[in-house]
Amino acid sequence: MPWPSEVKTAAGQMPIDPSFSVALHGSDPRLKKTAEIFLADLRRHTGMLPLDFSISDTPAQGHPSLAITSDKASKEIQEVGEDESYQLNVTPSGAELHAATTLGVMRGLQTFLQLVQVTPQGFAAPAVSIQDKPRFAWRGLMIDSGRHFMPLDVLKRNLDGAAAVKLNVFHWHLSENQGFRVESKRFPKLHEMGSDGLYYTQDQVREILEYARERGIRVVPEFDMPGHSTAWFVGYPNLASGPGPYSIERKWGIFDPAMDPTRESTYKFLDVFIGEMAKLFPDQFFHIGGDEVNGKEWDANPKIQEFMHAHSLKNNADLQAYFNTRVQKLVAKHGKTMEGWDEILRPDLPKSIVIHSWRGQKSLGEAAQQGYRGLLSSGYYLDLMSPTWFHYAVDPFGDGAANLSDVDKQKILGGEACMWSEFVSPENVDSRIWPRMAAIAERLWSPQSVTDVNSMYQRLELISHWLDAYGLTHNINYDLMLRRMAGSDHISALKELADLVEPVKGYARERLASASQPTSLMPLNRVIDAARPESIPARNFANLVNQFVAGPIKPGMESKIRAKLNKWRDNPTALAPLAQNSSMVQEIIPVSQNLSALAAAGLQALDYLDRGEKAPAAWKDQQLALVQQAFQPKAEVLLMVAGPVQKLIQASAGEAPTDLPIPRSAQ
Amino acid sequence: MPWPSEVKTAAGQMPIDPSFSVALHGSDPRLKKTAEIFLADLRRHTGMLPLDFSISDTPAQGHPSLAITSDKASKEIQEVGEDESYQLNVTPSGAELHAATTLGVMRGLQTFLQLVQVTPQGFAAPAVSIQDKPRFAWRGLMIDSGRHFMPLDVLKRNLDGAAAVKLNVFHWHLSENQGFRVESKRFPKLHEMGSDGLYYTQDQVREILEYARERGIRVVPEFDMPGHSTAWFVGYPNLASGPGPYSIERKWGIFDPAMDPTRESTYKFLDVFIGEMAKLFPDQFFHIGGDEVNGKEWDANPKIQEFMHAHSLKNNADLQAYFNTRVQKLVAKHGKTMEGWDEILRPDLPKSIVIHSWRGQKSLGEAAQQGYRGLLSSGYYLDLMSPTWFHYAVDPFGDGAANLSDVDKQKILGGEACMWSEFVSPENVDSRIWPRMAAIAERLWSPQSVTDVNSMYQRLELISHWLDAYGLTHNINYDLMLRRMAGSDHISALKELADLVEPVKGYARERLASASQPTSLMPLNRVIDAARPESIPARNFANLVNQFVAGPIKPGMESKIRAKLNKWRDNPTALAPLAQNSSMVQEIIPVSQNLSALAAAGLQALDYLDRGEKAPAAWKDQQLALVQQAFQPKAEVLLMVAGPVQKLIQASAGEAPTDLPIPRSAQ
Repeated sequence: MPWPSEVKTAAGQMPIDPSFSVALHGSDPRLKKTAEIFLADLRRHTGMLPLDFSISDTPAQGHPSLAITSDKASKEIQEVGEDESYQLNVTPSGAELHAATTLGVMRGLQTFLQLVQVTPQGFAAPAVSIQDKPRFAWRGLMIDSGRHFMPLDVLKRNLDGAAAVKLNVFHWHLSENQGFRVESKRFPKLHEMGSDGLYYTQDQVREILEYARERGIRVVPEFDMPGHSTAWFVGYPNLASGPGPYSIERKWGIFDPAMDPTRESTYKFLDVFIGEMAKLFPDQFFHIGGDEVNGKEWDANPKIQEFMHAHSLKNNADLQAYFNTRVQKLVAKHGKTMEGWDEILRPDLPKSIVIHSWRGQKSLGEAAQQGYRGLLSSGYYLDLMSPTWFHYAVDPFGDGAANLSDVDKQKILGGEACMWSEFVSPENVDSRIWPRMAAIAERLWSPQSVTDVNSMYQRLELISHWLDAYGLTHNINYDLMLRRMAGSDHISALKELADLVEPVKGYARERLASASQPTSLMPLNRVIDAARPESIPARNFANLVNQFVAGPIKPGMESKIRAKLNKWRDNPTALAPLAQNSSMVQEIIPVSQNLSALAAAGLQALDYLDRGEKAPAAWKDQQLALVQQAFQPKAEVLLMVAGPVQKLIQASAGEAPTDLPIPRSAQ
Repeated sequence: MPWPSEVKTAAGQMPIDPSFSVALHGSDPRLKKTAEIFLADLRRHTGMLPLDFSISDTPAQGHPSLAITSDKASKEIQEVGEDESYQLNVTPSGAELHAATTLGVMRGLQTFLQLVQVTPQGFAAPAVSIQDKPRFAWRGLMIDSGRHFMPLDVLKRNLDGAAAVKLNVFHWHLSENQGFRVESKRFPKLHEMGSDGLYYTQDQVREILEYARERGIRVVPEFDMPGHSTAWFVGYPNLASGPGPYSIERKWGIFDPAMDPTRESTYKFLDVFIGEMAKLFPDQFFHIGGDEVNGKEWDANPKIQEFMHAHSLKNNADLQAYFNTRVQKLVAKHGKTMEGWDEILRPDLPKSIVIHSWRGQKSLGEAAQQGYRGLLSSGYYLDLMSPTWFHYAVDPFGDGAANLSDVDKQKILGGEACMWSEFVSPENVDSRIWPRMAAIAERLWSPQSVTDVNSMYQRLELISHWLDAYGLTHNINYDLMLRRMAGSDHISALKELADLVEPVKGYARERLASASQPTSLMPLNRVIDAARPESIPARNFANLVNQFVAGPIKPGMESKIRAKLNKWRDNPTALAPLAQNSSMVQEIIPVSQNLSALAAAGLQALDYLDRGEKAPAAWKDQQLALVQQAFQPKAEVLLMVAGPVQKLIQASAGEAPTDLPIPRSAQ
């Protein structure tokens, strides 16, 4: 995963044992480091030891080896659209990887790693011939270090994961109302006063840049302006449009503070700042954000109003366009190409800029038709807790971009998954990114025809645990968090329940929790924080029930369903001892009771079906009401087996099964 | 854990919520960093977020807080025997920690952290009053970075664990036949040619020193000489007693190469080298190893023989004593106190040196009587795969040291657990150290009277998962390794079996694997490498059977035993699909078959008991033979439920149950 363009399987396999070696051909000095990272990864995936494998320039005779050829070096500073194609040929007697550039070698090595598996003869790679290249040139993951600071180890392990699924962009969201996260030597009050001490030193930034570069990943920094910038103003209030003073924002949402686009001092500041950051970050692109300016500070500032009048700027959008035009010139002056969210798109900006769309393919298509390049993030927001199939179905060339001309389509560079961090901490951020990110990566790399959802889910399950080897915590921290909540190691009842719930969707958490005023200081240690964005056990149960009610019924189906329901019916009893000791378990007892009630209803439905007796309408109505009630969010989580139980009830009453939509309050 | 000297519990608890704060009193500048580390640890153990807690110099009114007082700063360079005592008082309205030094504060904070638990009202610490101080001044963990290199992250997480159980020494074994692991600026060929590129730069060493210091842990470096030093000779063959050339040793054992004690150039080299390392490592103690010189190179070198004759050195022990005397002077010249293994003890060395005993308390007692200080590692070798109760019973004042005078006893400074790394990799080293290390730490910290094994095991289970929060991998890598072996996420049958086995004990692995010539390049990815040194499920089963056969039988006991046996009987069937795909699972199929046979025998024994019928002697003899056979090592692991099944068989035949000793071949 991502699935390659062309795969031809053959008979036999190549053993991977301690005598395995790599032979390198090519002049790129990066090739050696690339091979070293590959061998280190191979060690992680086999448990073989540091010295087991070696690199040379000729394949070892009589031992399994991988010959790697790179026709030419990839660019010193990685560019959009560099050739990433490769051909990989594995035979029982040896393997060959050939690529036009070292970037292609990196992608091919990831494919090779995924081929290595345990066999009756030890580790081996099956004989196969693969031709592969990416569909889109820009395949990214954005991590928001602004709202919650993400330490270096979080970023590194996610870069490992990103490389494993052939992403090539890490978009680093570095400033927010809640924090300014990069050391600025020119304006030290930015990080000193705007970060609570939680920022990256420039050395640390360079460490991440190098780590990413070694994995063929560009790093695009984002400094959001003129809005989303409260944290800048703590140290530099004169940048702002309001009177100040400012303090770091603790709440979530869209806030009033915005830079003052009417003062020359703002642009002088940004000139120096962008100059400093343009040097620190080598990538060609510089993301200025540009989203969600509510304009209130502008409206309230008479000088700004005066300026707008004097310059015939009719509204705040015009004012922001003026700002963007000025900033774009600064970005260009420092040798960079400006990128920003949808809002920056205005005809007065040069065609070189890149539109990053959170609005959708239509917006992207319109931009393309006007000659602007763009990339898609709408539909790839990982923080909204959507199921994997949803993200997998979103295509940069879909919807509003489907009917573009081929020329216009070329303007759409690709997409980026966005990990906004209102409700994630270093502890659970991986579980919001992975494994769903892998499916989005496949959408952006693999041919458009690769759309089989069942195949995707099967491979997703494998890759999820495979990624554990990189130290990603999406699996291991789940148990750790549940044990901590329970204050006990005996968490099977809690896990049974947590396995079946998902956090509420979209922006519902903020709404549902509004009474308690969620802030950046709020503990993220509850069931909602541990629960996976998508419950695979619930999905599997739904599939089983779908097959059962659709028929033909196969042996074992019903007993499988009954076994689950019997277990779930008893969940409150099993969970009670933990709940007595823990406020965090206590909170989901209503969910446990709902699970039990659903299970009882499901078992009764099966009894009716077993007896060949149609369930009475009154019973059915009562149970369907129960299902509705059980699917309401409690403790901000949704019990995802309500839908399949509804189908059992409907089937027992001789009705056609219908899907149960997510309640409006939880969307 | 370790259990404090005095604990008085009281009613009520102090809540730990985001308003919790710490107030500091004391002049030690280290106090603030100490509090910061504590708050970071508290975050890991509660899942609350970075900014939730704050440090000030006055307790916050109306909010839970911990007031910390340190009477005086601890030494700039931590010394042996500094005051580590503390008093901790937790009441519902607030907590106070008082210590003579910042070291005592560190220890007390670890106790406080262990008090924090989830309650029906959220996280809280129970009201308690604790007076505590260590029994021994030297409580250490040795990690062997020589045989297998251990990266920085391995060391850091183990230092976190060490601090959590109040250890105060990290003994860093830095050179071996298989690798020289520290950058030497004076003799760069040491690390360049002797480490396969796997060494610590001096900056990295300083990073570890600082990390340890912040946690109140001294770092004692060990450079083993004159033996265990092949890796030095790769770059500097003239140091050696043989003709050379030398290459890095790949095999395990005791080898011939040794420094030449007869050449002045050796001491010139060591003078410069020790000088460089004495500056790098601030601790007062400098460990020269000194163990296991087989003398073969000395015997074979005519010049050395001549020298011995000329200097009336009667044997190799005399020659080594001569060497040690010379080295001791160099160590002293550079301001350090020499430490070494038992072998260095000779009356010609000054009383200042410290004897590190791998031989036992008798050796330690003799040294004490001669006026030498010492510490115990015999009985604390973690690589020998002994059960926790064994280590827990080893006391520095036990056995041969039990009858020492009080004055002599004071010479015994404490002890160190040793993690020799022939058969551990960065992936599984934590699982050999933890949780057993915690029990040894309790032996060295807590009053001698704390010896309740059942209480220890209960607390050990809790602390084992509690330590997961530090990123220690002793629990998480178990599943990861099993999944990799199986090539599947569905590992319940494999885990059921792996849960019940232990690696063979002592040095049996080397012996049993001798046909395959184990080396430092050998993959450590098999069941033996994942299996825990002590099987707690087997121990629990043994306890259950012991209670059952001793009587009185309580309701549920037999059904519990039967449930396990029924499951185990079917293990081969459940494991078969995995074994078909994996050589590493295939290897333990005989163990699975033995488990099944044992389970069948146990069930039959229960049937006899149920029927009140004495099992026939022929049947019994046959089954006992089966038990013997099933307890033989297979794939270098031992099936630890053989013993309890033997007891069931004996009971069914009306015989007194006897323990089943570990087979000689597996010791």
